[in-house]
Amino acid sequence: MEIDHSPVQGKAMPFSRARGLLEALPGKAEAEVIGFAKSVRKLGQDDPRRIIHSLKVGLALSVVSLIYYLRPLYKSFGEAGIWAVLTVVVIFEFTVGGTLSKSFNRGLATLLAGALGLGAQHLASLSGEKGQPVVLGIFVFLLAAASTFTRFFPRIKARYDYGVLIFILTFSMVSVSGYRVEELVVLASQRLSTILVGGAICIVVSVCICPVWAGENLHNSVASNIENLASYLEGFGGEYFQSGQGSNSDRSFLEGYKKVLNSKPAEDTMANLARWEPGHGRFGFRHPWKQYLKIGALSRQCAYQIEILNGYINSDNQVPLEFRCKIQESCTQISSECGKALKSLASAIKTMTIPSSANVHVENSKTAVKELQISLKAVSLEHDQELLAILPGATVASILVEIVISVEKISESVHELSNVAHFKSVEPTVSPEKPQLLHRGAINPVLDGDSDHVVITIHETSAGSQENENPKAPKIGQRVEL
Amino acid sequence: MEIDHSPVQGKAMPFSRARGLLEALPGKAEAEVIGFAKSVRKLGQDDPRRIIHSLKVGLALSVVSLIYYLRPLYKSFGEAGIWAVLTVVVIFEFTVGGTLSKSFNRGLATLLAGALGLGAQHLASLSGEKGQPVVLGIFVFLLAAASTFTRFFPRIKARYDYGVLIFILTFSMVSVSGYRVEELVVLASQRLSTILVGGAICIVVSVCICPVWAGENLHNSVASNIENLASYLEGFGGEYFQSGQGSNSDRSFLEGYKKVLNSKPAEDTMANLARWEPGHGRFGFRHPWKQYLKIGALSRQCAYQIEILNGYINSDNQVPLEFRCKIQESCTQISSECGKALKSLASAIKTMTIPSSANVHVENSKTAVKELQISLKAVSLEHDQELLAILPGATVASILVEIVISVEKISESVHELSNVAHFKSVEPTVSPEKPQLLHRGAINPVLDGDSDHVVITIHETSAGSQENENPKAPKIGQRVEL
Repeated sequence: MEIDHSPVQGKAMPFSRARGLLEALPGKAEAEVIGFAKSVRKLGQDDPRRIIHSLKVGLALSVVSLIYYLRPLYKSFGEAGIWAVLTVVVIFEFTVGGTLSKSFNRGLATLLAGALGLGAQHLASLSGEKGQPVVLGIFVFLLAAASTFTRFFPRIKARYDYGVLIFILTFSMVSVSGYRVEELVVLASQRLSTILVGGAICIVVSVCICPVWAGENLHNSVASNIENLASYLEGFGGEYFQSGQGSNSDRSFLEGYKKVLNSKPAEDTMANLARWEPGHGRFGFRHPWKQYLKIGALSRQCAYQIEILNGYINSDNQVPLEFRCKIQESCTQISSECGKALKSLASAIKTMTIPSSANVHVENSKTAVKELQISLKAVSLEHDQELLAILPGATVASILVEIVISVEKISESVHELSNVAHFKSVEPTVSPEKPQLLHRGAINPVLDGDSDHVVITIHETSAGSQENENPKAPKIGQRVEL
Repeated sequence: MEIDHSPVQGKAMPFSRARGLLEALPGKAEAEVIGFAKSVRKLGQDDPRRIIHSLKVGLALSVVSLIYYLRPLYKSFGEAGIWAVLTVVVIFEFTVGGTLSKSFNRGLATLLAGALGLGAQHLASLSGEKGQPVVLGIFVFLLAAASTFTRFFPRIKARYDYGVLIFILTFSMVSVSGYRVEELVVLASQRLSTILVGGAICIVVSVCICPVWAGENLHNSVASNIENLASYLEGFGGEYFQSGQGSNSDRSFLEGYKKVLNSKPAEDTMANLARWEPGHGRFGFRHPWKQYLKIGALSRQCAYQIEILNGYINSDNQVPLEFRCKIQESCTQISSECGKALKSLASAIKTMTIPSSANVHVENSKTAVKELQISLKAVSLEHDQELLAILPGATVASILVEIVISVEKISESVHELSNVAHFKSVEPTVSPEKPQLLHRGAINPVLDGDSDHVVITIHETSAGSQENENPKAPKIGQRVEL
């Protein structure tokens, strides 16, 4: 029963008795228990919603078990009440969307399959005592085979997989149970009502106590993925060009992007569940969840590029110093401006405001690309570099140019999102930006401190309101007149 | 009931009545039905095992429903027989490993939770009529919360998620059912026996009729992923350097690698399920499934590189012809040798033979890298190329060099697999390879036709035998003496 204490061990509570028990254990077992307790603690700390979810499941089950102890309820549900317990256990999911999707699937599938099962029973009974099992067997075979096959359709798999399972289950149980039709109607209505009670308890607990919304999860995870890419790019210049220095410092920001590489299945699942959820918090009922998948796909594209780039950070530094110095400034500029653009896109998603501040950084990164091109032209004119020696550095530069294109695409799709999801507009009362000079070959030193002078007023329109019907986010590539 | 006919519509059978019905429908509905029929057909053709699986589920359910019609069996199981139907529906999975894993989880969890539930009932009954519901409620709450929390552990999630669910379910049902302990023992034993019957039917049908093994799936999917990468690389040289020509020809081989990018979750799932499977076909019980995950991760690494490379195929061709001509031969050679190496690695996995023929191609690709380096040195000496103009071409060359490193890593890990999984050795009776000259700057023309002269004898040792305990596959980088 060790398992019972795990959530408690996860919290730093004084319990001398447990400690006494632990000390009595042999060393190895003690180490294992402590290791287990630590991993429990870490799981809880990483996402405290996990602890809350576990307690919610316990609560929902305790509530449904009351049905068995309160006599009047017990009488009306009969022994079918056990189905309420079963329903709670299998449909209570981590997210509200998951719980709603399973409740809906279970309810509808039971209703449909129950009706079909009754029909099948009736048809089979027409064929006499001996024919009945054969006819029923054929029905079950055909329906189970056909339904199972539909589970291979990707769309059905994604949304109605559980419903099809319950459909097969209920149809088989009703049609083979051998009860007379009148008994079956009573049984079926009992089962349906218990499913409704179980489902209702799950939905109430899931929605009312610290709800975890799949849509909000998707929203936050897409934003934090972009942030991970941004952290890498902001730090890349320093890492690549000052390699050797501070190699022992915290380089965890170089690892975050790896989470993005395999983010597709989680995002797909969350988007599917989000469709079941009602409007919540800042998200309306028809929030454009699909657009997040588009942003996610573009983020992964950028993560692939960073993955290749990362190979060059870790390789031995063989590029001649002279060439590195020539591209250092513009490459660092490109990567840091891309990072800043992504950071402000991520924060625009998080705050649900129009990501206009990203445009400046995208433009700056494009300017830096032009500067890089001028530096590269200068290199070839001097004839003092061997192509083979400078190739790794040139490749890094080349991939950075590709990353600028990726970042621009991400920015475009975030603008699209801000448009269809009616993000709030951010209007500075004082024009903060120095005129964006599309000059070549010189760094714009004003960029580092410009954010200090921005005064931003956020119009306090509620998220659900339709005031900003057409905010017309400026298209990337257009000049931004703030 | 449209759904009923779907598998039948999938096959090209003459059914004039259905056609008559179809023609009677309005045009749009007809088009939809035809579209649906087509997608059913495509699903079946893509993987005929789906059709077989659907029929197997139908068969298993029909068999279990016999339990209700054969009187002697019915009597011994009682009404708990409905649990056998339920068991079949929920544990019959596409792969044998999935079915076994769910059967095992369900059986063990029911046993454990049943025993614990009885204990909880007994403890609760000690606290009197009024205290009993309270004590039971607390038990249910604690156990459900703790068990739910364990489902967040990645290892438990991957292997025992279903078991934990059934554990909570059974414990709640037993402890809140309100039966007396003697009744419960009868009920529990009935439930266990029906689960055993349901599980046994599933396992027999799943294993005996066209079994789908998760392990074999993993094996084939890892091999075919490598093949997809190989097809791309074999075709890359032609596509990149002769761009414009034959752009309308079949370029589907350029798309296959995209499947590899997101292959991680499917591979992880299959490896988890494969652990549950007994030895089957060419795979022993302790086949090193984990090694496939390692190969899969390296394949994805290579796919990321190809994804970047692919960006350059589709971009406008701006690299000066002169530079392209200089790198064309060695780049084409690198990419095609990498492709051949991966092809022979994939085929070695498929045939479960030691991948010695890949070594030659890996070495050749390394030789081609050296040739490329010589070409690049020559470029810089001539001073007639502008760095900026040749940068895209140089980047392609640079990424190809990285791909050679990736391919070598893949080759190493496949050799490791062949070693731990005791692949059969392939020994040519006549030494087929010309001595591998590590010369610089010249193409080795003998490579194209060399396979024509190889006489290969495969030692017919059975896959399960331990004869090749230490085949000592040559490490990459060592010379290969065939």
